[in-house]
This record gives sequence, structure tokens and C-alpha cells, in this order.
Amino acid sequence: MTQADPKLLSNIRIVLARTSHPGNIGAAARAMKTMGLTQLYLVQPYVFPNSQADAMAASAGDLLAQAHVCSRLEDALAGTTLALGVSARRRDIVTDVLTPPEAAVRMLTEAQATPVALVFGNETSGLSNEELSLCQGLVSINANPEYSSLNLAAAVQVLSYEIRQNWLHHPAWPQPEIDAARLDDVERFYSHLETALTELEFLNQGSPGKLMLKLRWLFARTRLAQEEVNILRGILTAAQTAKRQANRARNDQAE
Amino acid sequence: MTQADPKLLSNIRIVLARTSHPGNIGAAARAMKTMGLTQLYLVQPYVFPNSQADAMAASAGDLLAQAHVCSRLEDALAGTTLALGVSARRRDIVTDVLTPPEAAVRMLTEAQATPVALVFGNETSGLSNEELSLCQGLVSINANPEYSSLNLAAAVQVLSYEIRQNWLHHPAWPQPEIDAARLDDVERFYSHLETALTELEFLNQGSPGKLMLKLRWLFARTRLAQEEVNILRGILTAAQTAKRQANRARNDQAE
Repeated sequence: MTQADPKLLSNIRIVLARTSHPGNIGAAARAMKTMGLTQLYLVQPYVFPNSQADAMAASAGDLLAQAHVCSRLEDALAGTTLALGVSARRRDIVTDVLTPPEAAVRMLTEAQATPVALVFGNETSGLSNEELSLCQGLVSINANPEYSSLNLAAAVQVLSYEIRQNWLHHPAWPQPEIDAARLDDVERFYSHLETALTELEFLNQGSPGKLMLKLRWLFARTRLAQEEVNILRGILTAAQTAKRQANRARNDQAE
Repeated sequence: MTQADPKLLSNIRIVLARTSHPGNIGAAARAMKTMGLTQLYLVQPYVFPNSQADAMAASAGDLLAQAHVCSRLEDALAGTTLALGVSARRRDIVTDVLTPPEAAVRMLTEAQATPVALVFGNETSGLSNEELSLCQGLVSINANPEYSSLNLAAAVQVLSYEIRQNWLHHPAWPQPEIDAARLDDVERFYSHLETALTELEFLNQGSPGKLMLKLRWLFARTRLAQEEVNILRGILTAAQTAKRQANRARNDQAE
């Protein structure tokens, strides 16, 4: 058994999106630090920095001081190749739902090569559909069906705990998929896809959301490689060019 | 795989000893309920009941309302056959130190037959030596050596989570040791032992604590059966009788 590599933990981001209560941010920082995680990202925190956050962080104030505060989830995920959303099971989303140990293994495997993220939503409303659409999979903590609502920091504690235990006890990590596309490149592909599908009049410009979401989950399941992103964008460009030529030809005919 | 039996969870007590912050009691109740645990015991809580406890419990107020408030840890353990203390590793205590999954399996196994308890100490000072002496083993959550201090409710969440996951996924439970002595009977044996050793002038009446602790850990490791407790107490009574006879004979001679 080789020594567990601290780099793996430093490649794992805990992303808290739209957290309402600053005390939860502090408690989450403490939960992370007790398990050796350090990378805290806050997307649109309602109140931060804040004395209640400091109090709940106890001796994890350094994580708060170094926290990355972002205005968009995309910014918190920049540079990562894998983002998992922590959520109750949802029937409307077709994707893998991982247990905490499965999620821990997947993140640690990937973290050998690139940063990864675990995304927690707002205390009351959870992750929005838009936030979920930026994730490649869900993690669900099996809980009492009659009361399944873990406190935010408690959920961070359970996931951080599983990451640490798997980090400590896994004898050897399999190699990650080496050329997984960076999520920002994948996002640029989705933008390109939406533009192209609109130009092709395949997307209803009034409500493109539902179809785009389905396409996102489709590609999320496959885990796009960097080269595949390039190929797909090449195809889109080709399709756009064809459509523009067709439009021009039609306009020429109409004149 | 048989259906997980709810009786097992209802036989597991979460005991919070000398908790300082009522908010932590509420958060612990919420952590328990999300994992299906219901039996909350409070030993000398500093402030309880309390509005902060209610607020942090969210929808787990029923657990607070039904909580058993005790003045002594012995009372909270009455009727149990196994009590595990949650603590950082301690060099001064010779006993098994279990990981959370090991503790979960051991508690669930025993909970098929009798109530068991998981004991959490004060937020700042942890479990006292006296409290630890009432436990048969320690559970330690592997944490960051540079900052290992989990919030009390976060520790309750991790242990409750492990109990639930093992409860759900364990295909079949081994039979527990069927005739394990009840902890109150074991305590009466220890009292008897201390009295007898004092009468035998084996214990220094000034500071009996250290030796009694060592004897406790010795017997804790073996897990006494009910019949063995009876045998040991019979031996103690025999030794006391012998000593009293010897004293009387000496006094008679001296006269």
C-alpha cells in the first residue's frame, strides 16, 4: 500500500451554491478541514464573510479566508473535469446516482490528474436545474425516507469523511481517463450546440431549455474527451456553414 | 438479502454526555433522525430544553421531546449490554479502538438482542475517564492529524450514517453473544470488586482509581457473560468472608 497522496485531496473542491446561512458555511469549512480538504468555493453566498461563519468554523478560519467566492457556478468549476451534485434522488434526471463511497472513489481517481468538484445547493431549495445541468452525475446519501433532510454542513461532513476514508484505505488508484475534457470546454461546446441547433431551427427559441438539458445529460453520461469535444464542435461548425449557405441560396432564389 | 429490521435501529441509543451548547443537541437529533435513529439520551445537559436546540433540530423536534434526560451516565446505559465511547485515540487506554464501520457492525449485531449505546462526551473536554470507564470500547473517526476536532453533531452524523449504511447493506447479521451481561449488572460487579479489594487491603483506599480503571478495561475487553458475572461475584463474596473471618481471628488473638 502506497502512502496516500495529499495532492488528491487538494484537487477536490467543495462548492457551496447560494448558501443562505453563513453559519453553515463555517460549519462546512470545519467539516472539510477535519477530513483534510481545503478547497472551498462559494457561489453567490447570501452573507459572506460573516462572524457566524467564523464562529462555526472554529479552527478552520483559514479555509474561509482562502475561500473562492464566485458569481457563477461555471466559474467555480473552471478547470475541473468532473463535477458531482449532491442531491436527493430525482426522477426527472437521467444520470448515474452514486453512493457516497462510489462518488469518493470516482473523484479521487479523477483527482490524480485534474481538479474535481462536489457541488451542494441551497439549504431549502437544493440544486437548481441549471446548477444540476453543469454536473456530470449525482451523489445521494441514503437517508430515512420519512425525514431525509441532512443539514448542509452535515452532508459536507459525510461526503468529506467518505473521501478521506477511501483516500486512506484504497491500496492503488486506477488511472483516470486521461484526456477528459475540461468542463469549461464542455460548456463552450454546449453553447455552440445551442447556437447551432437554433440556427438549424431544430431548437424552439422560445423554450430551448428542456431539450438542451436532455442533451447535456446524454453527454454527461458519456464523459466527453477533449478530442471528442473538438470533433463535435467541428461537426457543429460544418452544420452551421451548410445552413448558412442554404439560407443564402434561398434568399438568392427569393430575390 | 432480508429486509433491514427497524428494531435494530430502535435498540441503538445515542448518549450525549454534558453537552455545553443546546444547538448541538438539536443538530445531533436532526442527524440521528435523517439516519433513522430515534433514541436520544442526554446526561447532564448544560441547557435543555432550549429554543436553540429546537431550531437546530428542524423537523426532528420529536426526538428532543422524547429524549431521556439523566443525571448519571449509568442511568443512560441501564439495560444496555454494550456501550462504545466516541473519542480520539488515547494512549492511556488499553482497549479496542474501532473504526466507524466496525463499530456500526458490532452495535447492529448486538442490537438484535439488547439495547446498545454510543456515547459522546462534552464538546471541549470529550469523555472523562469516569465516563470512559463505563464503556467497553472506543470508536475513533480517522481525521486530519492537524485538525481532528469534528463538531459534536457532525460526529453524530458520521456515526449514524455508518450505522444506517451497514444496517441497509449487510446481508445477514451474525448472532450476538447471547448471554452478555447487562451493563448495570457489570457495574454492580465493579462496585463489589472495589469493595472486596479494599477489604482485602489490596486497594489503596486513598487512590483506588487507577487500578480499578485497569481492571475495568481488562474485563471490558473480555465482554463478560451474565453467568460469569455471577461466578466472579461469588468468588468476591468468598474472599470477603475469608478476610472477615481472618480479621475476627486476629482480633480474638489480640484480646
